[in-house]
Amino acid sequence: MVDEHGIPRAKRTVFFVSDRTGITAETLGHSLLTQFDVAFEQVTLPFVDNPSRARKVVEQVNRLTTQGQDRPIIFSTVVQDDVRELLRDANAAFFDFFDAFISPLEQELGMRSSHTVGQAHGQGDTKDYSARIDAMNFALNHDDGITTRQYSKADVIIVGVSRTGKTPVSIYLAMQYGIFAANYPLTEEDLLKGGVPDILKPYRSKLFGLTIRPERLQSIRGERRPNSRYASLQQCQMEVMRAEAMFNREKIGFVNSTNVSIEEIATTIVHQCGLKRRIY
Amino acid sequence: MVDEHGIPRAKRTVFFVSDRTGITAETLGHSLLTQFDVAFEQVTLPFVDNPSRARKVVEQVNRLTTQGQDRPIIFSTVVQDDVRELLRDANAAFFDFFDAFISPLEQELGMRSSHTVGQAHGQGDTKDYSARIDAMNFALNHDDGITTRQYSKADVIIVGVSRTGKTPVSIYLAMQYGIFAANYPLTEEDLLKGGVPDILKPYRSKLFGLTIRPERLQSIRGERRPNSRYASLQQCQMEVMRAEAMFNREKIGFVNSTNVSIEEIATTIVHQCGLKRRIY
Repeated sequence: MVDEHGIPRAKRTVFFVSDRTGITAETLGHSLLTQFDVAFEQVTLPFVDNPSRARKVVEQVNRLTTQGQDRPIIFSTVVQDDVRELLRDANAAFFDFFDAFISPLEQELGMRSSHTVGQAHGQGDTKDYSARIDAMNFALNHDDGITTRQYSKADVIIVGVSRTGKTPVSIYLAMQYGIFAANYPLTEEDLLKGGVPDILKPYRSKLFGLTIRPERLQSIRGERRPNSRYASLQQCQMEVMRAEAMFNREKIGFVNSTNVSIEEIATTIVHQCGLKRRIY
Repeated sequence: MVDEHGIPRAKRTVFFVSDRTGITAETLGHSLLTQFDVAFEQVTLPFVDNPSRARKVVEQVNRLTTQGQDRPIIFSTVVQDDVRELLRDANAAFFDFFDAFISPLEQELGMRSSHTVGQAHGQGDTKDYSARIDAMNFALNHDDGITTRQYSKADVIIVGVSRTGKTPVSIYLAMQYGIFAANYPLTEEDLLKGGVPDILKPYRSKLFGLTIRPERLQSIRGERRPNSRYASLQQCQMEVMRAEAMFNREKIGFVNSTNVSIEEIATTIVHQCGLKRRIY
């Protein structure tokens, strides 16, 4: 960005201010900012849960304006009224999550909200916490086909050739939804045989496939093992083609992970497989 | 909840509707709902990105009202105008994320938003994606002290006795922030010696501790190895006491993970250690 004299301007600063982790404020703010084709300087200020911290935030924000920058933007999820009132006085555009929604929601529900610091990313009950840890342990213990012993306990078994993103997706499913996700790498032997690998046959209904563009796979594998047969385009093409043929023939649902985020792949799996989440 | 005749009422249903993953709608909605002391039935409807899907959502929502339930609540992050207009006609309280913020934000920035389906949880640029995958691989390869070879590359090394939550916190740091987090379990031998374990000494400035209430540790360990010395209260007390003494003596920052969520621990570490995130 340049100003009217053609001089580059500093990026506008966006603050995500929260009395807890800042995760809700960031999520809110990011979703909104991606709607605009501008770059922002982003600063998260978590644990702003008392007036003294709020005053420090206001100082930090106001300092930018006196330095001649564009008015900063604050996305706030602060619940405490006294803290919020202080923040509102900063020299900034103030977007307040609770102002916008809490009062209409109080009206709809016919009750007052607690106005206490949010439990949104708090531990919640111990049951939720255990579900999550159990699911993560399951994902780690059943990563990359290490063991298939407890596949009967899996909610889903993600299959795909090496380096299609099975591990991060499995872990994300565990972390976000408490879902027990195992993952199994299709080996060259599996691919040459062609059908569902014998070891997976009892769990057919749990299988979900990941695939990827061969060129992208080549580049990912090339970083790990440059100039190997494993990372050659020819090998990547062969593996991807055979894996996809198997998914199609065996009617196993699959997604192409090229240019798709881990969140999107995970959500697609939950949705398409009708999985029941254990965490809300 | 009971109605005026003392008959239990069905829980009110909350829909999180999105043209993408639904993650923003859920995050937004959860934060708000935790402010009210009521239980809700929660339904996420992702990928509502065309009028035909929107009509199906409206049917699903309206069905509940004809069944005599309280008016459902919709939290929407749908960006497309035509889809949003259809949803607004559902027989529900409609809380719209974009209505509330996009137009004031357009005014503040002096530009129109794209009104296209959000990239909030899209892959973003490949650089972000790689940073995340690299960080996750680092966390998995440096979990539980498996190897200390690349500790020089770590942004933080989480230390604590067995079962304090080091693994999920390391993985969360990688997934959410692209931070390279290793973790190292303090063994009984380390604890008896007392100081910073020799292998960690070159990385002192990167250490951050996790601790836990001994009673909680006993219960977690008991699930894994019931009636073992490892899971005895006495052993848990000894380990926790010695670990905390070491953190204090060596001035290593630490948090107590009892009743604290993974998100909160991770955010605290980023904040206290002043770590630089690689993903926004």
